[in-house]
Amino acid sequence: MAAYKRYRKEDKVSYSLGITLTFELLKFKKEYVTRVFIHSDMKQGETLERLVHICEAAGIEILYTDKIFHILSQKENCYVIGEFRKFAGTLSKEASHIVLVNPSNAGNLGTILRSGLGFGFNQLAIIRPAVDVFDPRTVRASMGSVFSSEIVYFDSFEEYSTQFGDREFYPFMLNATSALHQIQTKRVFSLIFGNEATGLPAEFASVGTSVVIPHSDRIDSLNLPIAASIAMYEMTKGYFIGI
Amino acid sequence: MAAYKRYRKEDKVSYSLGITLTFELLKFKKEYVTRVFIHSDMKQGETLERLVHICEAAGIEILYTDKIFHILSQKENCYVIGEFRKFAGTLSKEASHIVLVNPSNAGNLGTILRSGLGFGFNQLAIIRPAVDVFDPRTVRASMGSVFSSEIVYFDSFEEYSTQFGDREFYPFMLNATSALHQIQTKRVFSLIFGNEATGLPAEFASVGTSVVIPHSDRIDSLNLPIAASIAMYEMTKGYFIGI
Repeated sequence: MAAYKRYRKEDKVSYSLGITLTFELLKFKKEYVTRVFIHSDMKQGETLERLVHICEAAGIEILYTDKIFHILSQKENCYVIGEFRKFAGTLSKEASHIVLVNPSNAGNLGTILRSGLGFGFNQLAIIRPAVDVFDPRTVRASMGSVFSSEIVYFDSFEEYSTQFGDREFYPFMLNATSALHQIQTKRVFSLIFGNEATGLPAEFASVGTSVVIPHSDRIDSLNLPIAASIAMYEMTKGYFIGI
Repeated sequence: MAAYKRYRKEDKVSYSLGITLTFELLKFKKEYVTRVFIHSDMKQGETLERLVHICEAAGIEILYTDKIFHILSQKENCYVIGEFRKFAGTLSKEASHIVLVNPSNAGNLGTILRSGLGFGFNQLAIIRPAVDVFDPRTVRASMGSVFSSEIVYFDSFEEYSTQFGDREFYPFMLNATSALHQIQTKRVFSLIFGNEATGLPAEFASVGTSVVIPHSDRIDSLNLPIAASIAMYEMTKGYFIGI
């Protein structure tokens, strides 16, 4: 008899809460899926049949139980949960990266992953201490982007920059030397952002070219996922033709 | 003996949860503040003295009680709550606006208000049905921007456009005719965004010039406050000199 527990950072598995998210999980990381749980309130029909078909074809165990939903999901309308083994990512020296130094909020990290995939930044370095990318709240906020992103944790920025030094570094800071829309480069680069409450430590001013997103003095700063998304938008504008 | 209740949309008052937010409330909307509550764990010292001084000078009642904190605040580290009467806003025909059609998430609305103040958009039209701008979660996510923004609710977009028709309308839609970075205007304008889950109804395609923020097909859409913030950034870039 399986006993279900709340998710903890040290667990070997995490969860996709909801059917849309679970379909994304099965699309991009099927080989990591260990079990799929289906709630008794899940409607019969085509969607459920499709889910069952994918799981059966891949040899993934399906459990019909409501118990795990009480423990893992606070939201209504969550009738499917996917359980998956955590996977490791790899960063490429040829790709531009997002670097998050000490991010602390699970929802924010997920939102950045979603914007990242939207703007072609699916490689993310996270400097510890930091929030857990496999936290179900991160997974949910990412709308599944976490399943097709490459994410690597580092113990310090030095550890990261030793491996990926041959590129432009753009630390985002309020007292920076350049405004975002002035930045131009043809090299690969890393956009570097600090913690939600404290921003980047002052020493990042000497790491590459420091950048600010100009805004009025009526607010202290922009929210972290907003700043990161504006930066990604500006740096890739014109690559994606939306019309 | 006062009985404290959870906040409800129909209440005449709302609350600023936390000391930083309460200072913002006292700075911009002092005349609307009815009471300030202080928790027994609030540290003695300069900050508390300053708070008490402002309240006394303005004739605002201070209550030392923990009860209301159990009811209104789920977060730790909330030791001050400001209670304020809800206030009405006014929109100007000479100012550019943000128009939110049926926004449903309190945190998102607050985040948009924060970005708005950062980019000089402090006039907001909200088309019902819509989330409550005075919800304490909106107030908190706005980081106090709600206290210096002009916010007006309308029952329909037609009601809004009848009053404010003499301007550029830019509805943001996935199947739009223009990409954001191509938009140029010298007139006042309104940036129009739909609901988080459903976007704008199709008929907005014929309202002014429809706009898309180009992104890859790897995501369905950007998160609402992110899309709104990127749009505000692009439309005001160069006005705010950050360096």
